[in-house]
Amino acid sequence: MKKLIERIRKDGIGIGTEILRVDSFLNHQVDVALTDEIGEEFARLFRDSGATKVLTVEASGIPAAVATARAMGNLPMVFAKKAAPNTMVDGFYAAPVKSFTKGTLATVRVSKNYLKAEDKVLVIDDFLATGEAAIGLLDLIRQAGAKCVGVGAVVEKEWQGGAKRLEDLGYRVESLAIVTSIHDDDIQFKNV
Amino acid sequence: MKKLIERIRKDGIGIGTEILRVDSFLNHQVDVALTDEIGEEFARLFRDSGATKVLTVEASGIPAAVATARAMGNLPMVFAKKAAPNTMVDGFYAAPVKSFTKGTLATVRVSKNYLKAEDKVLVIDDFLATGEAAIGLLDLIRQAGAKCVGVGAVVEKEWQGGAKRLEDLGYRVESLAIVTSIHDDDIQFKNV
Repeated sequence: MKKLIERIRKDGIGIGTEILRVDSFLNHQVDVALTDEIGEEFARLFRDSGATKVLTVEASGIPAAVATARAMGNLPMVFAKKAAPNTMVDGFYAAPVKSFTKGTLATVRVSKNYLKAEDKVLVIDDFLATGEAAIGLLDLIRQAGAKCVGVGAVVEKEWQGGAKRLEDLGYRVESLAIVTSIHDDDIQFKNV
Repeated sequence: MKKLIERIRKDGIGIGTEILRVDSFLNHQVDVALTDEIGEEFARLFRDSGATKVLTVEASGIPAAVATARAMGNLPMVFAKKAAPNTMVDGFYAAPVKSFTKGTLATVRVSKNYLKAEDKVLVIDDFLATGEAAIGLLDLIRQAGAKCVGVGAVVEKEWQGGAKRLEDLGYRVESLAIVTSIHDDDIQFKNV
């Protein structure tokens, strides 16, 4: 997605060889117009996927997931939670997820009410790095007996292997910006 | 907001006298079309506020905050974070927040890059209960030297006192559904 890559070139900040900060427009401060275009692009890419629901994980995947759900005709959007509030009383699916940027181990949960065997689920997230978060969401989908029809990432850090890992498991992966390397301010992209 | 109140009557679940679950359409599974109407209603209520930025706190305030920012002409939307990722390196404002539903104490943070003295900030959240979360966000705004031009809540639990607490501090508060009492399935609203 050309406009996204241009924005990353302009406002993204590479730190060392592993970290890409895009928090001025994607995952702390959010550029709503760009987010809508991100949703439209995912809707275009996955228009034949048969998706009936969009799934992401709190918090930074939510804007892109909402925009995608809207662009696909107002599908229901579900965000997995990292804490178990005392209002989640009807039982939930849970899976472990290791956070690359935070260095922590979290549990992602979805209420059994909102993932059903008949759901065809499109997974959307802001970053695809090692694939840990997506693998956790796929585990929730598997537990529900539902089907994942694709994984969409706004930004992929290709060398961290998440896309290959998911594709090797048989999933379709679409990333709107594929970063191939970071050396501080030198950010390289695939296919541009 | 009539449609929201009707939806709470239909799909909200009261538990005891304090808890209202709206996770089938607002804060776990999200009805995107309803969320857009929520954003349009906040934009209508706050159209003369002079807001230049929308602020919420992760995670469940994000859909309504994005929708509001869009309806106000694609204002920047910022969500405060409850964890300090290692990518937040430029310094941040921090304030403590007690969670009513989770019984925990969290710290909310916003990077100093995304709250500035010139910002006129509209605070949006899914729930207004005791006002703790809003007070935390107002503290961040104060630290930045910015101005809060209003607080919008999708659902207010009036008896928990948050709206009065904020209004006593001089802030304008608009809630789209004001719940006056819950006794399990008996959910009462103000002005309907």
